[in-house]
Amino acid sequence: MNSMNNKDTAPQAGEASATDADALPPIQQRIQVTFEYPVRFSRGIFSPENALLREVMAPNDQEIAFSRKAICFVDANVAEAHPELLDKVSDYFAAQLDAIPLACPPIVLPGGEIVKQDPAHVDAVINRIAEYRLCRKCYVVAIGGGALIDMVGYACAIAHRGIPLVRIPTTVLAQNDAALSVKNAVNAYNAKNFLGTFTPPHSVICDADFLATLNTRDWMGGVSEAIKVALLQDADFFRYMEENVLALRQRDLSAMQRVIYRCAQLHLDHISKGGDPLERGSSRPLDFGHWAAHKLESLTHFKLHHGEAVAIGLALDSTYSWQMGFIDATQWERIINLLTELGLPVFDPAMLSHLDTPDDPASVLRGLHEFREHLGGPLTIMLLRDIGHGHEVHEMDLTVVVRSIRILEGFFKKKA
Amino acid sequence: MNSMNNKDTAPQAGEASATDADALPPIQQRIQVTFEYPVRFSRGIFSPENALLREVMAPNDQEIAFSRKAICFVDANVAEAHPELLDKVSDYFAAQLDAIPLACPPIVLPGGEIVKQDPAHVDAVINRIAEYRLCRKCYVVAIGGGALIDMVGYACAIAHRGIPLVRIPTTVLAQNDAALSVKNAVNAYNAKNFLGTFTPPHSVICDADFLATLNTRDWMGGVSEAIKVALLQDADFFRYMEENVLALRQRDLSAMQRVIYRCAQLHLDHISKGGDPLERGSSRPLDFGHWAAHKLESLTHFKLHHGEAVAIGLALDSTYSWQMGFIDATQWERIINLLTELGLPVFDPAMLSHLDTPDDPASVLRGLHEFREHLGGPLTIMLLRDIGHGHEVHEMDLTVVVRSIRILEGFFKKKA
Repeated sequence: MNSMNNKDTAPQAGEASATDADALPPIQQRIQVTFEYPVRFSRGIFSPENALLREVMAPNDQEIAFSRKAICFVDANVAEAHPELLDKVSDYFAAQLDAIPLACPPIVLPGGEIVKQDPAHVDAVINRIAEYRLCRKCYVVAIGGGALIDMVGYACAIAHRGIPLVRIPTTVLAQNDAALSVKNAVNAYNAKNFLGTFTPPHSVICDADFLATLNTRDWMGGVSEAIKVALLQDADFFRYMEENVLALRQRDLSAMQRVIYRCAQLHLDHISKGGDPLERGSSRPLDFGHWAAHKLESLTHFKLHHGEAVAIGLALDSTYSWQMGFIDATQWERIINLLTELGLPVFDPAMLSHLDTPDDPASVLRGLHEFREHLGGPLTIMLLRDIGHGHEVHEMDLTVVVRSIRILEGFFKKKA
Repeated sequence: MNSMNNKDTAPQAGEASATDADALPPIQQRIQVTFEYPVRFSRGIFSPENALLREVMAPNDQEIAFSRKAICFVDANVAEAHPELLDKVSDYFAAQLDAIPLACPPIVLPGGEIVKQDPAHVDAVINRIAEYRLCRKCYVVAIGGGALIDMVGYACAIAHRGIPLVRIPTTVLAQNDAALSVKNAVNAYNAKNFLGTFTPPHSVICDADFLATLNTRDWMGGVSEAIKVALLQDADFFRYMEENVLALRQRDLSAMQRVIYRCAQLHLDHISKGGDPLERGSSRPLDFGHWAAHKLESLTHFKLHHGEAVAIGLALDSTYSWQMGFIDATQWERIINLLTELGLPVFDPAMLSHLDTPDDPASVLRGLHEFREHLGGPLTIMLLRDIGHGHEVHEMDLTVVVRSIRILEGFFKKKA
């Protein structure tokens, strides 16, 4: 019985009495896990000569003996903007030397928030995984905006406890934020992202060519997440965007790629070095501006896109920071100016509903409560103390929030 | 723009050409996460004077200001065997000084595999989490067998990306195996555990008093997982069980607790030190005997309980190990003897179906294929090379598997 006697913790043979389970020492289980995934930047990734995706999916020695396969899901908006894409994807896989065939032709699913709203889409993805008998050494490839990637990622996370997901984000927002994270989710029970998991992707490939066909709203919408991280962490990056407003408005792809790349760096650094990648604490620094943004998306039935809602949320929490004396009027003006010069909104009429009944589900103020509830623990909201420096608080004065909304309303009316 | 120039990876300002996204250097994201959870052993954990559960759920300083709550789900088999349990649970929470109230009285759900088969049960758990607005600082407490804990754990893993789960396993199998793991799952698409996640629990509390009311099948069924880890890793532990066959048959709680404790130690060590806690490789050493076990459970429509199916799987793979010359006849006899002296089965007539058509879903041999498919990669099966030492192979000779089945059939007929 020697090996049953772990010196540190196990009871000696014959010592435990027949009735005393408390004599069995506690075991503290401790598991360390390292997740790694590449985030790569390229153009024309489905051109036959572009080796990036082949490289990323290359099997290791152990796997090479086993024939693997993949299923590819494509955002309908992307398929429409790039009519040649589905054939190019099929050809790319067919031409591969290392034989990871597509199990079926690429499957088109709706893009945008609707794909996270209807549980039939999750079922459809899981159904295909079951039908084509994908295993944990196979791949799902998701090409699309943040919503499609979020939904496909959720399905992949729960099927067989995890089918590897290659994320190919096609929007500014997805390339600089949504597709980089370790999260996935769908909407349920009237709440955004109610169901989801923390599951890192197999890899992320950002192809700048997809950005060229974005409509103006989606081209610029994603910049609000870049402004957010710049405001929290990097005044030089904020200044870079101020200096490149015109280039960004004129759809200069190089300027946009630099904004995306720096934003991606800051996001990925925060996830890996921020100390709480799986959000077990109550603080979520990168959710600056997001309590209002999430609520406004749902109040406008997603007529406001996420990036636009974030722009408004940033404007609101920046205005609140100014009204509370954390930043000065000059700093506040720089923020509002950058947002508006980029054509991003800083106000929406949906913010005016039920301001006197903050617990009403139709009030934007209710978003504070919902934000706290999703994270759990005490309310923790990120504000600003300078451009480039965040500042966490644990309560917000609703009268000052309402005053901030009125200030933005005035600004909105003046411009209109 | 200084801060945009990460020395190692970022392009210098102005360097990238307008069209060359390949000039943006790859980013290798790397995230390290440590999961920790206590596994505790006690008796009478809902007695007012037992502080264990209170301790385990005690809030830390940051959380203490925030009022949390819990929902408790109870296995119907346990509620029936312990008619006073529901009231005791309610009283225990009501009497707590540190105020984690139950959001509602304990909720009874079916026990056994059926609770993993019907998706309505997952919906019911998530519905309650939504209805009572539980957050990531709240708790779900699951009291029951491995199946109930698996199903409730899955629901908790996907709601808000993770509601903390306190597992209170009530069977031998759940205390020494199922409830210790970082996994959860439900059955779907005609496959066991098709949907699930890797999500460590908040804590595990094993109360030996629940074992006293188990029926004979469930009392002994769980011992097969202990025999499994002993066969793979600990010859002394195997000998301990040989020497305590009578005590275990006579339902000596102390002997059973020692079996459970040692088995738990070995399982937890394997998870934390085995190098692959999230099963990203193709090898799953602790699934010795499980390819046949999983298949037999489904072939018998779960009339065979998991522990019984594992006993048969161990017998089969031990017989195969003997027939292949990896172990000798004496070692094989010790294994079969221990199983049968404990009253565990080593054969089931369902093993005889379709042995000549190994790809038929009704053939136990099909279990090999399904096992490989669930894990992905090349087939990897654990066998024995000695009592206390496992031995991995990447193929199995089906004629020898069939011969092994016939040997066990003969053994079964002789006993009958």
